Amino acid sequence: MSELIATYLLHDETNPEKKAEEIALGLTVGSWTNLPELEQSQLRKHKGRVISIEGFPTDNRDQSLIRIAYPTINFSNDLPAILTTVFGKLSLDGKIKLLDLQFDERLKGLFPGPRFGIEGIRKKLNVYERPLLMSIFKGVLGKDLNFLSEQLKQQALGGVDLVKDDEILFENELTPFEKRIAAGKAVLHEVKEQTGHRTLYAVNLTGRTSKLRDKARKASELGADLLLFNVFSYGLDVLQELREDPEIGLPLMAHPAVSGASTSSAEYGFAHSLLLGKLLRYAGVDLSLFPSPYGTVALDKPLAISIALELTKDDGFKKAFPVPSAGIHPGLVPLLIRDFGNDSVINAGGGVHGHPDGARGGGLAFRQAIETNLQGKSLAEGAEQYPELKQAIQLWGNAEVIH
Amino acid sequence: MSELIATYLLHDETNPEKKAEEIALGLTVGSWTNLPELEQSQLRKHKGRVISIEGFPTDNRDQSLIRIAYPTINFSNDLPAILTTVFGKLSLDGKIKLLDLQFDERLKGLFPGPRFGIEGIRKKLNVYERPLLMSIFKGVLGKDLNFLSEQLKQQALGGVDLVKDDEILFENELTPFEKRIAAGKAVLHEVKEQTGHRTLYAVNLTGRTSKLRDKARKASELGADLLLFNVFSYGLDVLQELREDPEIGLPLMAHPAVSGASTSSAEYGFAHSLLLGKLLRYAGVDLSLFPSPYGTVALDKPLAISIALELTKDDGFKKAFPVPSAGIHPGLVPLLIRDFGNDSVINAGGGVHGHPDGARGGGLAFRQAIETNLQGKSLAEGAEQYPELKQAIQLWGNAEVIH
Repeated sequence: MSELIATYLLHDETNPEKKAEEIALGLTVGSWTNLPELEQSQLRKHKGRVISIEGFPTDNRDQSLIRIAYPTINFSNDLPAILTTVFGKLSLDGKIKLLDLQFDERLKGLFPGPRFGIEGIRKKLNVYERPLLMSIFKGVLGKDLNFLSEQLKQQALGGVDLVKDDEILFENELTPFEKRIAAGKAVLHEVKEQTGHRTLYAVNLTGRTSKLRDKARKASELGADLLLFNVFSYGLDVLQELREDPEIGLPLMAHPAVSGASTSSAEYGFAHSLLLGKLLRYAGVDLSLFPSPYGTVALDKPLAISIALELTKDDGFKKAFPVPSAGIHPGLVPLLIRDFGNDSVINAGGGVHGHPDGARGGGLAFRQAIETNLQGKSLAEGAEQYPELKQAIQLWGNAEVIH
Repeated sequence: MSELIATYLLHDETNPEKKAEEIALGLTVGSWTNLPELEQSQLRKHKGRVISIEGFPTDNRDQSLIRIAYPTINFSNDLPAILTTVFGKLSLDGKIKLLDLQFDERLKGLFPGPRFGIEGIRKKLNVYERPLLMSIFKGVLGKDLNFLSEQLKQQALGGVDLVKDDEILFENELTPFEKRIAAGKAVLHEVKEQTGHRTLYAVNLTGRTSKLRDKARKASELGADLLLFNVFSYGLDVLQELREDPEIGLPLMAHPAVSGASTSSAEYGFAHSLLLGKLLRYAGVDLSLFPSPYGTVALDKPLAISIALELTKDDGFKKAFPVPSAGIHPGLVPLLIRDFGNDSVINAGGGVHGHPDGARGGGLAFRQAIETNLQGKSLAEGAEQYPELKQAIQLWGNAEVIH
């Protein structure tokens, strides 16, 4: 029998055994022991079952971990049905956090996973041996296409591999979606001609839900490189439909905007690894952004790494790029590579734009830090060789020394 | 200047003034004081501003309430853009909860609100002077149309006004969507002919996001009464698009499934009143379900009432029905009417189906309790007059006595 196994963390539950049984029945057949035998035999294939219950008192609080198996025959093969089943009314039922969902092979086979994944993105860039480098447009509200083009150019000249729109840039008169794509293409082509370096631009796909697919298809026609998408203000299934549409066929970059509302609490909501890792990957993202462990908007390191693991572990799907973000400067590159490995994207905003030589200098400093680290040298050594890296380390410090 | 004002609750923020300024700038123009005067004058209309900061130490924790105004020119007129702006990366930034969003008249005018609202639903039922009564299908997984029809019939014979699908009933071979609508219509027509009582059936709209509108239009063609919708496994904008589609034109009932993930924490996520009240109403629901304050899956009474207030206060839109749910039995009717008033829906599952005389008896007991209460009599008095109410109170108790 095909089953989906959910793992929950309970807090302050005095009788986790009873609670687990209530969940297994309450979210499937409703009741069991009082049913006539004939009805039991008819309903057996729909009945949830408790797989395990584990209690462990920590931090002076009663915590327990329960695992429930739900027959997949109970729901249609879409994430809204799955989430409603395993964490619908249950999400309202006391201190309970959904830590993981274990899809069996049959169910997994019904989800697309990334269209490009790490390998596909690397192929587009022809960069295989190092982490990618991404930077972010800054201060774009109220600015025109010339401003954006110039900012994009400076970032690209610094050698970044990817530039993403600000996630709060929506449809507007000065820099409308289609014009951004066209202007971005022109600038990046120019830089490519000039330097040989290819930079990809992730344009923010926004607007009303039912218009997104047409808009994304149009982006594809116009030759857009990637789509940035605020998936958590829309819905995971909306993302999946973008992924599945062959007429779109563009890499998808998920922004974690709004996700903190349902991941930040230790007692409620979704585990980071599930929402920003596994489910995004299953639904089809190629790159997933999440807070890095190093900045002011920071995620605890084990949580950040747990997301990256879900995006990259062997799980039947293509691997998606982890993009630990916020608070990143060149001095953190050795830590980023140590913690997230080569198959990650180093993503910076202020750490690129705030460089004394501007975004170009910031990009160069990052590329120099990556190069230095991969050669097995310290950043201090790299700084002797590269002036931009030296400036960056003077400004922001060197995590090799701090940590 | 048109503005959207967001109210946030901060926990453990040592410098709320600084934080508020960072938010007002960080989520709009990025920076300000270091900008040249010319740029300031160009960007002024995009700049967020701090409206107020209020500190109040309670429960030995530092809490503060900050209000930020965002120029509406910064985003497109859709909820995904609004949520990404006011609670995008901010949702990931420490202990912060979004308590409220205050739309100005211009922005409000761009949202639809309920198509029917309380008055429209009452008109469909021709019931004006009392709270409505709703019951829920139970134990429907693995059951066929005959089972559902019979269960629907018993509920309708008990005099309930509305019956809703179980939210975990998805597309399935035994009771597919369109057949449920047809079978439901037939049964409810039969009961109407037999008793003169009209019951409406809310069918669960499920499946892939891009198919929902066609499915809902088909439901409308088939004469469905209402749509139940697990809006929080999809997205608020998906709901709004269902509301706005004139070819659908059906009342929408929002189920709170999955919403607990982003409302339950006192420190993170959305206030219940905002997510289950204001935003659902603006987006267009006619009825919003949420946990009642009385059952085992319970919401604190002030929170439950705050949702009801948002659904029913004078706010330029039609009023939507509050549906406090879970743990409801006839003995709670006086409390429900005291706390949620006449313009609410009394909604029960076990409290209808678990009646000694079955769902019909349960429905009758509820109607009797409502009748008794509105006549200014105690349930104890009513129980002398009505045998079904008497049985219910013997089984579940009488909140007039308990409280």
